[in-house]
Amino acid sequence: MSAKTSPLAPASFPDMPPIAGVRLATGMTGLRYKGRDDLLWAEFVPGTVVAGCFTTTATRAAPVRWCETALAGGRARALVVNAGNANAFTGPTGARSVAAEVDAAAAVLDCAREEVFVASTGVIGVPMDPRPIADLLPQLSGRAGCDNAAWQAAARSIMTTDTFPKGSVATATVDGRTVTVAGFAKGSGMIAPNMATMLGFVFTDAAIGATLAQRLLARAVDRSFNAITVDGDTSTNDCVMMFATGAAGNRVLAEEDADGAAFAAALEAVLSDLARQVVRDGEGATKFVTLTITGAENDAAARRIGLTVANSPLVKTAIAGSDANWGRIVAALGRSGERVAEDRLRIHIGGVLVAENGAVHPDYDEKVHVADYMKGEEIEIAVDVGIGEGVATVWTCDLTHGYIEINADYRS
Amino acid sequence: MSAKTSPLAPASFPDMPPIAGVRLATGMTGLRYKGRDDLLWAEFVPGTVVAGCFTTTATRAAPVRWCETALAGGRARALVVNAGNANAFTGPTGARSVAAEVDAAAAVLDCAREEVFVASTGVIGVPMDPRPIADLLPQLSGRAGCDNAAWQAAARSIMTTDTFPKGSVATATVDGRTVTVAGFAKGSGMIAPNMATMLGFVFTDAAIGATLAQRLLARAVDRSFNAITVDGDTSTNDCVMMFATGAAGNRVLAEEDADGAAFAAALEAVLSDLARQVVRDGEGATKFVTLTITGAENDAAARRIGLTVANSPLVKTAIAGSDANWGRIVAALGRSGERVAEDRLRIHIGGVLVAENGAVHPDYDEKVHVADYMKGEEIEIAVDVGIGEGVATVWTCDLTHGYIEINADYRS
Repeated sequence: MSAKTSPLAPASFPDMPPIAGVRLATGMTGLRYKGRDDLLWAEFVPGTVVAGCFTTTATRAAPVRWCETALAGGRARALVVNAGNANAFTGPTGARSVAAEVDAAAAVLDCAREEVFVASTGVIGVPMDPRPIADLLPQLSGRAGCDNAAWQAAARSIMTTDTFPKGSVATATVDGRTVTVAGFAKGSGMIAPNMATMLGFVFTDAAIGATLAQRLLARAVDRSFNAITVDGDTSTNDCVMMFATGAAGNRVLAEEDADGAAFAAALEAVLSDLARQVVRDGEGATKFVTLTITGAENDAAARRIGLTVANSPLVKTAIAGSDANWGRIVAALGRSGERVAEDRLRIHIGGVLVAENGAVHPDYDEKVHVADYMKGEEIEIAVDVGIGEGVATVWTCDLTHGYIEINADYRS
Repeated sequence: MSAKTSPLAPASFPDMPPIAGVRLATGMTGLRYKGRDDLLWAEFVPGTVVAGCFTTTATRAAPVRWCETALAGGRARALVVNAGNANAFTGPTGARSVAAEVDAAAAVLDCAREEVFVASTGVIGVPMDPRPIADLLPQLSGRAGCDNAAWQAAARSIMTTDTFPKGSVATATVDGRTVTVAGFAKGSGMIAPNMATMLGFVFTDAAIGATLAQRLLARAVDRSFNAITVDGDTSTNDCVMMFATGAAGNRVLAEEDADGAAFAAALEAVLSDLARQVVRDGEGATKFVTLTITGAENDAAARRIGLTVANSPLVKTAIAGSDANWGRIVAALGRSGERVAEDRLRIHIGGVLVAENGAVHPDYDEKVHVADYMKGEEIEIAVDVGIGEGVATVWTCDLTHGYIEINADYRS
């Protein structure tokens, strides 16, 4: 664990209200970490709807493979998450460990195995002993709750190299009632689109059908967790899951009408906030970078261009050095594989027009216009690539000595 | 310029023989660097055949655009290369600078403008004054030569963040005669497949047709410069050019018969050596990594898998830390987009079987088997992905504090 909290961390963990039908508890397995909770238990009222998005990597971890299968049922009663061992690249042993966790949780709640979801994060390739996890579940269920302390403990229990717990909450008015969406996430390195070593869990009291839940979650993930990058490294264990208890008693959301849109907006607000907190906790990060691409062939092209720039080690090190090195931005843009009109490129840094029409702006003076700005912690870069109407925003951080320190030593 | 030579540098610059029909000279423009040669002039006998491979980026520099056009003629009399200013993203000014260089060179040799090739490397986005370059050309032509000192001065004159000059030479027997292939290259950061901030120039006395020259050069580049990566950042200015004077007097090579194959082997040997020297000079590199992928769907898939692993910041930082963190290799493999059979994956590090069949090998003991090996400067990693017969070798280096130091400060 890092000793020092990221300089980009929010001032405090948010106030998180209870979600009716959700109970949380954390415990200490001792599997890897000592003296801290490393196990999360969440249980849900019967009938809770589940949706999930998972890493696209070909080397998916055993818990991910289980969840992808269980998701077909569309219902959840329990979630078990451990930190310290990813249970990835563990062969048949890994699947057996997952089965043991699932059996234990199903026994506690007397529910179907397919209603139990599991996630793991930590070191890859080390067989995971499921017994310390299974043994803890009955007592965790006995003392589970949903006050603010429970939320914060939950967010902390799943951390690995994270330096602060990440939570977010939003509400929406649906069918005349207020519904709440609350969630937490972990992630700090191996962060890239198509998830990351990134776990995110959101909980809502809204009543929503499984099909719509999946569609809205996938879209919100696309605009949040799939629009961030720390180091371009996708993980074996990424997942974002949503659990909807229906306890708010609204008419079940089943389509994208006004109520569906209101709920979707709250969901996206929570996921986007969590995703940006993950970037703020990027390993070694000292600057938070918002990169807006406009003028691309379409939105997907804009995002690919943005992520190419955001993943460029040369762009990221320039930002670390408070250097407004827009030449490196131009170089990165060019290799995205997407169409770019060099003679119509426009680049703004911190709102200052730096380059247009394929060359530096004649009035631009780096020392006068952006040198002080680049020393700040929040950097905004906007690029218009002069082709079409595609737009995307991606978020990233700088690449510093801190990243090297963390990753040349930390085994996980 | 870096003060310290890379620890991975070869012991010395090779002995390079003269190539009949080639004359080289270097000079000092003072455009950016002080107290060192930063301009290369090469002139060739009439009838010299030229071939070239250029960066695929959408933001290609002005000199690259010129060369792509001039290449259609297939003949070269002169090459002009400057270091310190890339003449990239310089708009119409950039094209005018190139035209002035070309005019000056054509006047010196009284040749066609299309027989003059130019290349630039250095800072992006700063307009380049061509006068100091043009003014030097007559005197450089007057004192050009091709002894070993001239080769070494040429290789030095094009360096930017390079810490050592890179040269290589090979011979082949063609039509009963010995022909020589000699070349030099620069490159250290912004190195990625599809070239890099990488300039490579090879010279031969072989007589070869323009069509075959282009085909053989493209193939050799594919197996050398397109199989290396330092940081995944492709540049605006990459190029590899070959100049064949025909002075050896062999029957003109026009097809891939035994003579053609002998020449191709020499060419590939030189380019492969130069490409690996570029990796050895990777910014901040302390370890040279050879990554061999077997069992992929095809050779192209194998190379994409290899480059995904080679570009992973987590793999590169683990190697920097002498950490045999094969879990990160598994994670990187999975996100290459190519087919991978996780349950048949085999990973060797330094010849030791670390993992197979989707899990760590039961007899593997990191401390006993690879801990000492990982502390060395030459790291070999072999991965079989269990799908087919595709094979590729890629070369990379580790990611260290040195890379951050160079790139968070150096503006270029």
